Amino acid sequence: MHVIGTGLIGASIGLALTAAGADVTLEDQSETSVSLARDLGAGRISADVAPGVVVVAAPPDVTPRLVVAALQRWPEAVVTDVASVKQVILADLVRAGVAIERYVGSHPMAGRERSGAISARADLFEGRAWVLCPHEGTDPAATQVVSRLARATGAAVTTLSPADHDAAVAAVSHAPQVAASLVAARLEHLSEQAVGLAGQGVRDVTRIAASDPGLWTQILSGNAGAVAQVLRAMSQDLVGIVEALEALSTDPHVADAPGARAVLARSIADGNAGHARIPGKHGAPPAAYAVVRVVVDDRPGEVARLLTEIGEEGVNMEDLRLDHGLGLPFGVAEISVLPAAAGPLTEALQTRGWQIHS
Amino acid sequence: MHVIGTGLIGASIGLALTAAGADVTLEDQSETSVSLARDLGAGRISADVAPGVVVVAAPPDVTPRLVVAALQRWPEAVVTDVASVKQVILADLVRAGVAIERYVGSHPMAGRERSGAISARADLFEGRAWVLCPHEGTDPAATQVVSRLARATGAAVTTLSPADHDAAVAAVSHAPQVAASLVAARLEHLSEQAVGLAGQGVRDVTRIAASDPGLWTQILSGNAGAVAQVLRAMSQDLVGIVEALEALSTDPHVADAPGARAVLARSIADGNAGHARIPGKHGAPPAAYAVVRVVVDDRPGEVARLLTEIGEEGVNMEDLRLDHGLGLPFGVAEISVLPAAAGPLTEALQTRGWQIHS
Repeated sequence: MHVIGTGLIGASIGLALTAAGADVTLEDQSETSVSLARDLGAGRISADVAPGVVVVAAPPDVTPRLVVAALQRWPEAVVTDVASVKQVILADLVRAGVAIERYVGSHPMAGRERSGAISARADLFEGRAWVLCPHEGTDPAATQVVSRLARATGAAVTTLSPADHDAAVAAVSHAPQVAASLVAARLEHLSEQAVGLAGQGVRDVTRIAASDPGLWTQILSGNAGAVAQVLRAMSQDLVGIVEALEALSTDPHVADAPGARAVLARSIADGNAGHARIPGKHGAPPAAYAVVRVVVDDRPGEVARLLTEIGEEGVNMEDLRLDHGLGLPFGVAEISVLPAAAGPLTEALQTRGWQIHS
Repeated sequence: MHVIGTGLIGASIGLALTAAGADVTLEDQSETSVSLARDLGAGRISADVAPGVVVVAAPPDVTPRLVVAALQRWPEAVVTDVASVKQVILADLVRAGVAIERYVGSHPMAGRERSGAISARADLFEGRAWVLCPHEGTDPAATQVVSRLARATGAAVTTLSPADHDAAVAAVSHAPQVAASLVAARLEHLSEQAVGLAGQGVRDVTRIAASDPGLWTQILSGNAGAVAQVLRAMSQDLVGIVEALEALSTDPHVADAPGARAVLARSIADGNAGHARIPGKHGAPPAAYAVVRVVVDDRPGEVARLLTEIGEEGVNMEDLRLDHGLGLPFGVAEISVLPAAAGPLTEALQTRGWQIHS
């Protein structure tokens, strides 16, 4: 098993597979980077390797060239890459005219804010999705090899065609990033007081708007076609909503604007339907959890005390969110539990002296 | 102090002010609703009242009529309302030709998923923003009266003109709702596998997309002009992004598309700038917290044990988020702390045997 490119992803793969008992060799155009990865325990460095599988873990723009070189250098090896876009890479390989039966594109969905081997972790892929993207000409045995490799890192393997992969990440990752940035951009020139009215809703919608512009320009450019398709559909919906609002704003009392109101209602209802598709934790079907809101003092240990007592009641918390009050020294802990547990938990916490917030 | 309309907001105001020692009288067109509010302790019912201040807590469409009636019925009383849109209400009052020096619009920002007096809580407004919207002709003494009332419920009072209020809630509440719904709508027809790639980012962006279409049609219609203005600006930004992506997708290797890439980079950077405007907890300026990620088994009590130990280390947790792994029986707790606390906390937790996730 040979890793070309010992940045965050490559070095983490080396660490994970070394931990799983594999013999990993490392290669990088930077002598410093590959030495660091070796010293961290990601694998060994050898001038003479004959790998069964090669992982190209380089930036998307140099990935096709490195995959071509690997396929030619080791005529028996299976070769995969880890770029977050798949059609562009495959198109380049086809254009290069090499035999690609032994190539299987893949995408471990485990980004980080930091980069480089120094940030690498053996557990980076644990519980994360790792998408395999075999193309039409891929040898099924090659796909099996890469699948075993991904599972050995602790990742949950799923298989999509390159086109389906790119469309999926456009919808579940790239378009949401753009939407979050667009909403956040509208806050830039608000008054201090106006932006002070921001509640949990806009905080959630814009959390990922703090992302790095350079990185995201690369990501969006690399998946430009698929992202454009999702955003064009969103843009058409948005134009319809703006037109409906403009019709209503000319006279809010106009009784004969049912069409405009229907556009608004349908937009929110379509959002309901899409939201319901998002799987729950552990990949389970989405569950409608009940939320119990508890007032918590803003002191070290208070949330811990609350959760300890929830644990003592034998209730499994499905999710937790802290909602901080505006200008007051306490917050509200929103505890998501299975609906059947909400009533008993509320009662138990009240008995224990907690204030349940409506 | 007299409350007209004993639904969720009216009854909660009654409960909060009764608890604060005020003599509250209640009125509602529904005999059932007003009796329930009285029985819950929100105030008393009297045919003959001479209030100093009247709160109209009715749906937006009937609010202007009830405010006019209250101003005429009690010529000395200060009258306020609690509708979530303010310009439309004021325009109706001006159109009605009544003297409105004693009217001060207001908006307590404390919604709930449930409605009706039965869901009312004395603490509904604690720590929430309550916006006062005096108009140009409002008697400053009347504004003081409503301000005292709002503060007595535990709310944090802020003052904005009706136009500024409507523009603010359009940007921090109504436009984010539309954006979340638009993103979520794109997930509706994805394959099971594609939607299975949804990570924490899209979950956060679309959380509020589960909102009620009927309620939001009313809210958006009532603030149509201000919302249209924000969404039109977003729509223009979005069209620019789609055009840039389409230029890039014709040939992703085109070296001479710096303009298109600049559009993408600027959009994300504008989002960064807007996101940085959102105040931190307690209305404090936004702080850049450090995040410590800890692997937590999915068992009752495990998160509690973690937070107990964080408390024992004397570290104040600023925020907490649970990120559930895909297909695995554990999650990652993301603990936000002041940057100076992150290093010591990481070390202390590792010493205590916790696995720190990268």
